[in-house]
Amino acid sequence: MTQSKPSTQAAHPLTLIPGPVEFTDEVLAAMATPSQSHVSPQFVEVFGDALALLRQLFLNTDKRAQTFAIAGAGTLGWDFVAANLIEPGEDALVLHTGYFADSFADCIATYGGKPTQLKAPIGDIVPLDAIEAALKAKKYKVVTITHVDTSTGVLSDIKSIAALVRAVSPETLVIVDGVCSVGVEEIRFDNWDLDLVLTAPQKAIGVPAGLSIFIASGRALDVFRARKAPPASYYASLAKWLPIMQNYEAKKPSYFSTPPVQNIHALLASLKQILAVPLADRFAAHARMSDRVKSTIASYGLKQVAVREGYQANGMTAVYLPDGVVLPELLPRIAKRGIVLAGGLHKDIATKYFRIGHMGVSVTDEDREDFDKALAAIKESLAETGYAV
Amino acid sequence: MTQSKPSTQAAHPLTLIPGPVEFTDEVLAAMATPSQSHVSPQFVEVFGDALALLRQLFLNTDKRAQTFAIAGAGTLGWDFVAANLIEPGEDALVLHTGYFADSFADCIATYGGKPTQLKAPIGDIVPLDAIEAALKAKKYKVVTITHVDTSTGVLSDIKSIAALVRAVSPETLVIVDGVCSVGVEEIRFDNWDLDLVLTAPQKAIGVPAGLSIFIASGRALDVFRARKAPPASYYASLAKWLPIMQNYEAKKPSYFSTPPVQNIHALLASLKQILAVPLADRFAAHARMSDRVKSTIASYGLKQVAVREGYQANGMTAVYLPDGVVLPELLPRIAKRGIVLAGGLHKDIATKYFRIGHMGVSVTDEDREDFDKALAAIKESLAETGYAV
Repeated sequence: MTQSKPSTQAAHPLTLIPGPVEFTDEVLAAMATPSQSHVSPQFVEVFGDALALLRQLFLNTDKRAQTFAIAGAGTLGWDFVAANLIEPGEDALVLHTGYFADSFADCIATYGGKPTQLKAPIGDIVPLDAIEAALKAKKYKVVTITHVDTSTGVLSDIKSIAALVRAVSPETLVIVDGVCSVGVEEIRFDNWDLDLVLTAPQKAIGVPAGLSIFIASGRALDVFRARKAPPASYYASLAKWLPIMQNYEAKKPSYFSTPPVQNIHALLASLKQILAVPLADRFAAHARMSDRVKSTIASYGLKQVAVREGYQANGMTAVYLPDGVVLPELLPRIAKRGIVLAGGLHKDIATKYFRIGHMGVSVTDEDREDFDKALAAIKESLAETGYAV
Repeated sequence: MTQSKPSTQAAHPLTLIPGPVEFTDEVLAAMATPSQSHVSPQFVEVFGDALALLRQLFLNTDKRAQTFAIAGAGTLGWDFVAANLIEPGEDALVLHTGYFADSFADCIATYGGKPTQLKAPIGDIVPLDAIEAALKAKKYKVVTITHVDTSTGVLSDIKSIAALVRAVSPETLVIVDGVCSVGVEEIRFDNWDLDLVLTAPQKAIGVPAGLSIFIASGRALDVFRARKAPPASYYASLAKWLPIMQNYEAKKPSYFSTPPVQNIHALLASLKQILAVPLADRFAAHARMSDRVKSTIASYGLKQVAVREGYQANGMTAVYLPDGVVLPELLPRIAKRGIVLAGGLHKDIATKYFRIGHMGVSVTDEDREDFDKALAAIKESLAETGYAV
């Protein structure tokens, strides 16, 4: 879809991990934008446009919601949730499909919330009936869902979960950790009645790490406004940032903390590329590539960590090593072929699997042939270890 | 000192504000580094080197101290102080020389600390005898000093204040907000026995905004380790980040939250340029440029906000408008001449003054003639408003 011309980037190993992903030339050029005042008319225009285009990425038109892009990381999004939408002593239901729910629960507890985890077996989802039972047993201020757990590749059905929450416990806020999903998995923020979706730029948004990106619903912002205690974080305070984002989106300069001018330019550059084609086409392209990677991996005789069909991420695949092959034997061989993959992350199985990221320009620009190279490199490297592919 | 060859940057207005400053071509090229895994050997090397060079920038050799570079902003450094080094109910003495002390106090209170501000009149410093009296009247966990208050251009004497604190209240931690000072004002972290200096990249370090940078002493880290309550922030938790920084500096990959790979590359590029000449020479070059700007401004009949000689920043100048001239008449005229200056920031006098930043490559590379252009633009623009320069 983009980048039919030769790349201006120096030759480099292909980074095909579940983030950071490969970036387009235009995004990297935007990262090198010469200095600009953070309150200059030029930058205000760029920041305002980026916030408006983020709405499109989240399929949001309801202006009571607000998009945010703040210097930080995906992780910082958890702080925004925990320090603004949950008051000390309030309960949070944390749906656990891997490593990241433990961390989100840790974050919630840091600010005085009381996380209760519903844990799926490794590679599986939390069933809807278990969520329904939990919601009926206790009143929860928020439910958090890891849309795609980057440690397992499990994809949660946020649409159905959100509908269930709204039916059973209408006041409970639905919080989606979309770090490894926004830009690759379908998310209809308004239609699905979500309350906050947080993400990071270096995955399917295709922008270098360095931002916390999220959208909060009118309902979530009203809950925040009705808070009894002040926000429990200073840097991650909605009270500080909400007027800043509203002002920039209205093309007015505003100051709380200096925004990362170059990263915001890169965000705008990538959003323009992403939104130049219908999002449905983008999702479909990622689903096709995911199918290709997953079926090829299966043809090598390898098993996925995410066990349940229909609940496997479209932007990454977590793959168990074959018996007798260890990561230090496999990944360096793949790296020698110019392909960087990731090791395991879930602590219970970290040495037993590896991860492939298939998001962004490596997927949408098929002329790059990134996955022809990657899948061949995996096959050849497995063969070198003595495994009969 | 750098950049004798023609710039590769697109023509753009010169950003001569108290941050962001102009960047070198090498720094911007590093911002456009192609994708790299955050745990790749290549990036681990870069991050480790950047953390080690930051020690040199802070004139630190004591390995009990640790440098940090984290996706965020200068503001986030306050959260690290308030959420890790101060426990709920503990007292903090906040020395106020402008806008930023109010914000730092607000941050401390957010996490349950009890800030007491010692306020100087606008443009002046807090006298040592007032600090001494305060320290003798109550036990403070920390003293915070804004080294250069970007809203006033007041330079505090952190060396003398640190010595006073150590003499009167040896256990009190000395915290320096060096956002507008690190890289331009002399800071001897070890020799002056400081405990934490926090800063941001987009000022005298000459790197785009997007990082929280700080160094914490062995004493500060011991105070943190002896904390009774857990850290009061998740993203700004020393417990989370200390092992990450130690690992990267030891050239070992480590994961808590994805680091901003490109911004760290840019940090390393700039630190290499800065440390290619003795820091004393760098400080002297900035002092000379500051003298030139300040004496030229005085020759135009204009007064500085920072009233006391010897306590005026070397990296910026805050200048009162002449009677009858207003900002919307002056700054756009200067901007038409290709020079971006900043308006006022201190709320009590915001419309009455403007600010000039003189930091980084615009100062160290005299061949750029940035301040020949800027000072001429100010003079011509003042004349256009009818003011007799």
